Amino acid sequence: MDRSAPQITSFHPPRRVLMGPGPSDVPARVLQAMALPTVGHLDPAFSGMMEELKTLLRWAFQTKNELTFPVSAPGSVGMETCFVNLVEPGDTVIVCVNGVFGGRQAENVRRCGGTPVIVEDEWGAPVDPDKVRKAFQAHPQARILAFVHAETSTGALSDAATLAQIAREHDALTIMDCVTSLGGVPVLLDEWGIDAAYSGSQKCLSSTPGLSPVSFGERAVAKLKARKHPVQSWFQDLNLVLGYWSGAGKRTYHHTAPVNPLYGLHESLVMLAEEGLEASWARHRAMHEMLRDSLATMGIEFVVRPDARLPQLNAVRIPAGVDDAAVRAALLSDYGLEIGAGLGALAGKVWRIGVMGYGARVENIRLCTAALRDVLGRQG
Amino acid sequence: MDRSAPQITSFHPPRRVLMGPGPSDVPARVLQAMALPTVGHLDPAFSGMMEELKTLLRWAFQTKNELTFPVSAPGSVGMETCFVNLVEPGDTVIVCVNGVFGGRQAENVRRCGGTPVIVEDEWGAPVDPDKVRKAFQAHPQARILAFVHAETSTGALSDAATLAQIAREHDALTIMDCVTSLGGVPVLLDEWGIDAAYSGSQKCLSSTPGLSPVSFGERAVAKLKARKHPVQSWFQDLNLVLGYWSGAGKRTYHHTAPVNPLYGLHESLVMLAEEGLEASWARHRAMHEMLRDSLATMGIEFVVRPDARLPQLNAVRIPAGVDDAAVRAALLSDYGLEIGAGLGALAGKVWRIGVMGYGARVENIRLCTAALRDVLGRQG
Repeated sequence: MDRSAPQITSFHPPRRVLMGPGPSDVPARVLQAMALPTVGHLDPAFSGMMEELKTLLRWAFQTKNELTFPVSAPGSVGMETCFVNLVEPGDTVIVCVNGVFGGRQAENVRRCGGTPVIVEDEWGAPVDPDKVRKAFQAHPQARILAFVHAETSTGALSDAATLAQIAREHDALTIMDCVTSLGGVPVLLDEWGIDAAYSGSQKCLSSTPGLSPVSFGERAVAKLKARKHPVQSWFQDLNLVLGYWSGAGKRTYHHTAPVNPLYGLHESLVMLAEEGLEASWARHRAMHEMLRDSLATMGIEFVVRPDARLPQLNAVRIPAGVDDAAVRAALLSDYGLEIGAGLGALAGKVWRIGVMGYGARVENIRLCTAALRDVLGRQG
Repeated sequence: MDRSAPQITSFHPPRRVLMGPGPSDVPARVLQAMALPTVGHLDPAFSGMMEELKTLLRWAFQTKNELTFPVSAPGSVGMETCFVNLVEPGDTVIVCVNGVFGGRQAENVRRCGGTPVIVEDEWGAPVDPDKVRKAFQAHPQARILAFVHAETSTGALSDAATLAQIAREHDALTIMDCVTSLGGVPVLLDEWGIDAAYSGSQKCLSSTPGLSPVSFGERAVAKLKARKHPVQSWFQDLNLVLGYWSGAGKRTYHHTAPVNPLYGLHESLVMLAEEGLEASWARHRAMHEMLRDSLATMGIEFVVRPDARLPQLNAVRIPAGVDDAAVRAALLSDYGLEIGAGLGALAGKVWRIGVMGYGARVENIRLCTAALRDVLGRQG
């Protein structure tokens, strides 16, 4: 075969303003952290950084869970890590589906040999706790409840505290997807009694995509230790991963951690710590309200009812007669602005405007409003 | 729970010279690429970059395989991706074990419900083709052969061409680990007839850790399409991943790719293309010889016999009476130099000196030699 190299040169990305469903705008501090010199993944300096990362993540998740760390892969692997460790063949799992990511949870249950009992809600609606109660009554053998806190495909926020409470009443563990919620709205693992949670680096934390913070409580670890079947994934087996992420000095080789992206995640969490959790939640809320009011003047409507709206992910209906793809292409080419398309059942019907992390600031809201007004005006 | 943030500030890594088993030294060009502005993972500019990445990887692997792309996770996930897609429950797989990573392959086979037939060789020896022939004769039902081309735990290079040939004669697919070989010694997928291969970004490619280039040939794709059982991993199911990595314009959402690390991998492959594959192989060989000659003057011996030595991973015996951990700690503290400890059966008995990618240059060899001479002198 030809050994001569392809004529490909360095990549120079365009500068974008990212207001889609993630990745969100990454601040310069985080980008610069990505470029710091790589050290070995077993270097004592790196182990110290990992300990800090775990402390920062526990705080962000509002948990004391010892087993809190970033999975070395995207959010969908964080999801899979929760399911392959906690679901055994034959287990019945109640899964709430009100968008794409609940559906993916159900698919994970199936691939673990479990049986998902689907609690369905309309796309755009939050999970209905009454349906979950009924599902537990109809399937008393269920020992796990899985749901998505913040549905990235629809912009709906579900009542995690109530859902976790129902699970406890039925002696079931709770697995919560908080990929899009962490940092943008309250995520209170211990207060709510969540047993396992996974998130992503590229939403309200404003780090680059590719890492998935997870946290497991004592009840989850007990279920893991009591497994009869080995975990089907070697990489995701928490029994093995535990030794790698355990305290400095005791670390044993498992895989090679993504050193530089972890620098970036560390820096993004330091920025969140500087701002404070409550201040970050308030900022997301304020920027959402500013965007909502601007969109209202253009007659653009939200998919989700007001009390269940995620401030950080605004799903809005595409006005009648407007060409979805043409508008998004014009925003990208004329303003360097990315907003998100609809997914699954909402494809072609909605746009998803992200106001996440570093992207949740006044200049982004102004740009988005002005750009949409201009581009929609041309369509009219 | 207390909402007040932990008092943790930005992380400032020390500057190291990385001559362990990986990550290897990352050049400034690649680090700078990591810090380029993040774009959306479905942005047309990003899709164009992904196409270039696939072209560059095909060239690096010396293959025409359409299905060649970087898995969005470390090398161990690349490994798992090969096994979960190609091994079905009940399959017999011949696995060559001559170090840690062959053992991990066998573990992967078990977790897929397959039965591994272990062909064992001494740690430090290459895989013995005669044993593989005998294993196929004893287990004619075996339809897959798995082996590690370059054993990172021992520094042994196996004869991939011969092993793949034996597999073909028995109508079996070949899965090859080339995590440490790609870019450092010839890896010729098509010439050798390898059906599935996985590598890592952080060895001879000198990118940051966290990505795993993989390639699948037609026979592997046919086995995948003919599966009776669904792939046990959602994230790694190639049937789904295919749509995400398919040509620009046809891409469908699967997960969110690690945008910035992919910039880094792209840049590292552009650098490899500028140098040329054969020049890179020759440079690794020359730097290995320089190191070997220096170590010989200190009476330090290699684990692997000369004709099976990996130039990029030099496993050498720790001289009698020398304190392993103390020497490595002194190299790190006094010279900022990282060399690798022994793994598994070789722990405490060997050092692993990496001469990989950007780390394979004269100043690194000189530093390593001088530092070792100084630190060992103090021990004597």
